Amino acid sequence: MSGTNPRREAVLGGPAIILIEPQLGENIGTCARAMLNCGLTDLRLVRPRDGWPNGSATASASGADLVLDNAKLFDTTEEAIADLAHVFATTARNRGMIKRIMTPKEAAVEMRAQSVAGLTTGILFGPERTGLFNDDLALADTSLTVPLNPAFSSLNLAQAVLLIGYEWYQTADATPGRYLHTGATRPATKDELVNLFGHLEAELEQCGFFSSPEKKPSMIRAIRNCFQRMDLTEQEVRTFHGIVSGLVGRRKPTPKE
Amino acid sequence: MSGTNPRREAVLGGPAIILIEPQLGENIGTCARAMLNCGLTDLRLVRPRDGWPNGSATASASGADLVLDNAKLFDTTEEAIADLAHVFATTARNRGMIKRIMTPKEAAVEMRAQSVAGLTTGILFGPERTGLFNDDLALADTSLTVPLNPAFSSLNLAQAVLLIGYEWYQTADATPGRYLHTGATRPATKDELVNLFGHLEAELEQCGFFSSPEKKPSMIRAIRNCFQRMDLTEQEVRTFHGIVSGLVGRRKPTPKE
Repeated sequence: MSGTNPRREAVLGGPAIILIEPQLGENIGTCARAMLNCGLTDLRLVRPRDGWPNGSATASASGADLVLDNAKLFDTTEEAIADLAHVFATTARNRGMIKRIMTPKEAAVEMRAQSVAGLTTGILFGPERTGLFNDDLALADTSLTVPLNPAFSSLNLAQAVLLIGYEWYQTADATPGRYLHTGATRPATKDELVNLFGHLEAELEQCGFFSSPEKKPSMIRAIRNCFQRMDLTEQEVRTFHGIVSGLVGRRKPTPKE
Repeated sequence: MSGTNPRREAVLGGPAIILIEPQLGENIGTCARAMLNCGLTDLRLVRPRDGWPNGSATASASGADLVLDNAKLFDTTEEAIADLAHVFATTARNRGMIKRIMTPKEAAVEMRAQSVAGLTTGILFGPERTGLFNDDLALADTSLTVPLNPAFSSLNLAQAVLLIGYEWYQTADATPGRYLHTGATRPATKDELVNLFGHLEAELEQCGFFSSPEKKPSMIRAIRNCFQRMDLTEQEVRTFHGIVSGLVGRRKPTPKE
């Protein structure tokens, strides 16, 4: 879902994703895909179990090759984080460490603030089976915990990368929360809408729909409110003129045409 | 990452996830897992290609069996959505339809509002290869589009379910954005902290660290500010008393002990 929009530029850069001793190439590939979904391109691998490059990573990256091609390889976590200003660690359990914990949403705001200040941040992910080593955790400023169903909260590597990357992406995204896609047409003007009301109500009057005169005003208001909620376009107003005329059974030109 | 927290109850229920003609059992399984991660349990399948139940769905659900066991099977989308009050559709392209479009974040607020009002909502997902059919799209109130890297925004089924479910879960989650995990100990009181300042500064005075008397007050403030940012616990204050004493080279009891 949510396909390619060629009108907008790709948004790239952002925090480094650092995978410590990833076991499966497939997981490195799906992480790369999730990264690119979120405009993240700085992938760092510390001692990947099956070496690097890895064919199954490419096979599962669904075309996120630019992330894999630019991946950097390190022997130690210390080297992988050397240039970073702030390091986040993803952990399943806190293991008794005394550490700041953030949600991905809060952390994303912090990462964006650092990015705006010209600083690079990174997020550590441990091996699939064990999660991060305690010594790697102690190299991080802050732990990240994703609020999820406490009875079933385990995520695979790519899902964790996706949720954290998603929050990063949202901090700089300007998509309106809701809008009406009107395509080639435009929202109807109020004049066009009121004209439709007039057409409909005249025909309803004509066919005896308003059985009681005293209820007529409130029925009209109720019907008008239904149409208000439709957010009709100019073209759709024409369609409804045609519907009314069609139902009346005599093809007459719509008003103003 | 983000492990099981036995102290909190599972949060279940929420909007229905409706998969129209899903092709791969594996994808149904990974969707079930993503659903349960987000406390969603109402899975509805319309004409799954390989029939139902499906062994590969179970194999890839990583234990989200309760979702698969309760999945409902339908012949038509109309039947699958019959009891719902509001239907969202996930689509790659808008295909010229005139329709309200929301982000998952905005839609989650709407779903939560409907849920609080006792109404059930649902989200349609089309077949992996083609996405939703136009006629199914026309059965939905609202389209959903996930803001992601426009140059690489395609998500697999489970990733799309996870992002939408994640936003649903966040609308009722009370996890603080950031907090300090202090485990069995507690944050230090200001009295304990000021006492540590006194110990450290007395020793620094003693060893001649403050070379210029006029700079001493600002140096003390700078050092105190470093310690302020540590958010030390009571236990860690003791540790720093020990560090100072250790560096001074004579084991003397820390003040107030």
